[in-house]
Amino acid sequence: MSSPLPSEKAFVPFVSVENMMRLVHHIGLETLLAELTDVIEADFRRWELFDKTPRVASHSREGVIELMPTSDGEIYSFKYVNGHPKNMAQGLQTVTAFGLLAEVSTGYPVLLTEMTLLTALRTAATSAMAARHLAPKGARTMAMIGNGAQAEFQALAMKAVCGIDHIRLFDIDPLATTKMVRNLSGSGLTVTACTSSQSAIEGADIITTCTADKQCATILTDNMIGAGVHINAIGGDCPGKTELHRDILLRADTFVEYPPQTRIEGEIQQMEPDYPVTELWKVITGQAEGRRTAGQITLFDSVGFAVEDFSALRYVRDRLKGTGFYQDLDIIADPDDPRDLFGMLQRAR
Amino acid sequence: MSSPLPSEKAFVPFVSVENMMRLVHHIGLETLLAELTDVIEADFRRWELFDKTPRVASHSREGVIELMPTSDGEIYSFKYVNGHPKNMAQGLQTVTAFGLLAEVSTGYPVLLTEMTLLTALRTAATSAMAARHLAPKGARTMAMIGNGAQAEFQALAMKAVCGIDHIRLFDIDPLATTKMVRNLSGSGLTVTACTSSQSAIEGADIITTCTADKQCATILTDNMIGAGVHINAIGGDCPGKTELHRDILLRADTFVEYPPQTRIEGEIQQMEPDYPVTELWKVITGQAEGRRTAGQITLFDSVGFAVEDFSALRYVRDRLKGTGFYQDLDIIADPDDPRDLFGMLQRAR
Repeated sequence: MSSPLPSEKAFVPFVSVENMMRLVHHIGLETLLAELTDVIEADFRRWELFDKTPRVASHSREGVIELMPTSDGEIYSFKYVNGHPKNMAQGLQTVTAFGLLAEVSTGYPVLLTEMTLLTALRTAATSAMAARHLAPKGARTMAMIGNGAQAEFQALAMKAVCGIDHIRLFDIDPLATTKMVRNLSGSGLTVTACTSSQSAIEGADIITTCTADKQCATILTDNMIGAGVHINAIGGDCPGKTELHRDILLRADTFVEYPPQTRIEGEIQQMEPDYPVTELWKVITGQAEGRRTAGQITLFDSVGFAVEDFSALRYVRDRLKGTGFYQDLDIIADPDDPRDLFGMLQRAR
Repeated sequence: MSSPLPSEKAFVPFVSVENMMRLVHHIGLETLLAELTDVIEADFRRWELFDKTPRVASHSREGVIELMPTSDGEIYSFKYVNGHPKNMAQGLQTVTAFGLLAEVSTGYPVLLTEMTLLTALRTAATSAMAARHLAPKGARTMAMIGNGAQAEFQALAMKAVCGIDHIRLFDIDPLATTKMVRNLSGSGLTVTACTSSQSAIEGADIITTCTADKQCATILTDNMIGAGVHINAIGGDCPGKTELHRDILLRADTFVEYPPQTRIEGEIQQMEPDYPVTELWKVITGQAEGRRTAGQITLFDSVGFAVEDFSALRYVRDRLKGTGFYQDLDIIADPDDPRDLFGMLQRAR
């Protein structure tokens, strides 16, 4: 009478790390970064539509585990992501993640995917989107302070989206810089390894900071920062973790994703609660000014927000079609009669 | 130099719906319900240790999607669960769920599992745990109002844990009752199908209400409830969704899981914000009284809390060992050098 086989609705497409890598190479990394930048920007244009909440964080001595949900009323997404700076010493990733899309109308998941790689991609695309609106015109050189897992993605997104062709590197660990130089050989970028932050930022139009120490560090001080640069501050992204001296903030105009979250997690956690910031989506929709003058210092105080993950998940879902780069996961119990969960269990005996 | 194969840490054991059913039959359903009741009770005994927060809900016209995180400081868990009462008309489950365990020290997931079945099991086990402490001595008959997907699990948990041997059924849809009668044949329970709530609760020591309408319904009215019964109210579990007339609450002593969540979602959302309730964990640890007299009406205003999912996930993880009822999911990117995510991607080309 009843089939013991799960129906189609019971299966959720799952993108493993291996399949995500296949998808990236299938599309091409720089093409993907450019497309993803546009998808994120399209969602920032309809920012007001989203159900927004600061991420739900569970802090421990070693790190943090976060859930980042959002919804546009039709699709719901969330990401699971951790941040454990000491993981690296054990040979583990500082940040790992996975995420999900679901239909709002039924609550049924429609995509489950690794998001460690995807988070690196969307973070780079978000930086590029901000720089497209805030960086000085004709910017060609970026300094990259912190040469860890996120760094190459930042460099290539800035190349693909903003026309950056020269990257100047610094990391307190020279091996990280060596790794990045190696990885970017053949990328078409001119890459210069530097021995100090000071030297790395010489002549840079964009300065990206992406370091992982969970503490209030001062990667950049005020006297290092010349007029007209755009600072893309990625690493200060949880309470007690900042990278910039507050004097830099006082000279810069600060742009943020979602103020209630950034005031807790971003560089501006150093400032008073009503410290003036501009929401990036307002710059993108033309409701607020971005860069006004050539001498202005712009700061994108980036912490990463759920809408960017939503965009990335939506992009993967669309780009996955017809590729076969996924497997069907039997994660939803789907009895023939929805009230007969018990009967489904009994028949499986 | 670097292996393209992911390391062991990159794989997360995944329990599909099919494997969950295998595990249930391997252990035996009633044995599992009894063991799970004890595991949940053990976690309720160390209630104060848990990082607790009301679930993070995303409400829509059609239903709700929720994330339910918690942690005991060593293990972190969360569940994704939806509630869409109208799904049933489309042949879909009202409630589907999946969940995850992770190490707090690294943030790395250690188990991903279906939780549609597991939620039914843990909800039944939690009801049985509460009844074990609150139901009248020697209770043998339970009325089951609402004969949907959760109902048989409730009946068998009450049998396995509390010695219930007679179940009296009512549902506004007689087909649901027919299904439940069929499913419980051979279970060892005496099952009586009734044509009204009034008739179902005749002679019942425990009354379980488990209906799915997302509205303030009145499944039970005050004049129906005799002295001394234990009411196990499962269905009122989100804002605007209740099952009991408030006059019943006024005659009963109310026991809850986590007051900040129950006051939003439970039967007591009908009452003033400081309406007196007793936390169930305090009864279990002996810090508060449960049932004091034979004539007292006890009410477990159950909404389902994250700690119960934590217990269920922990139980599955322990019971999974050596069974092979899981598959390894490549969900965590794990490059040889944790800073070299990009190199891992490049080598996969």
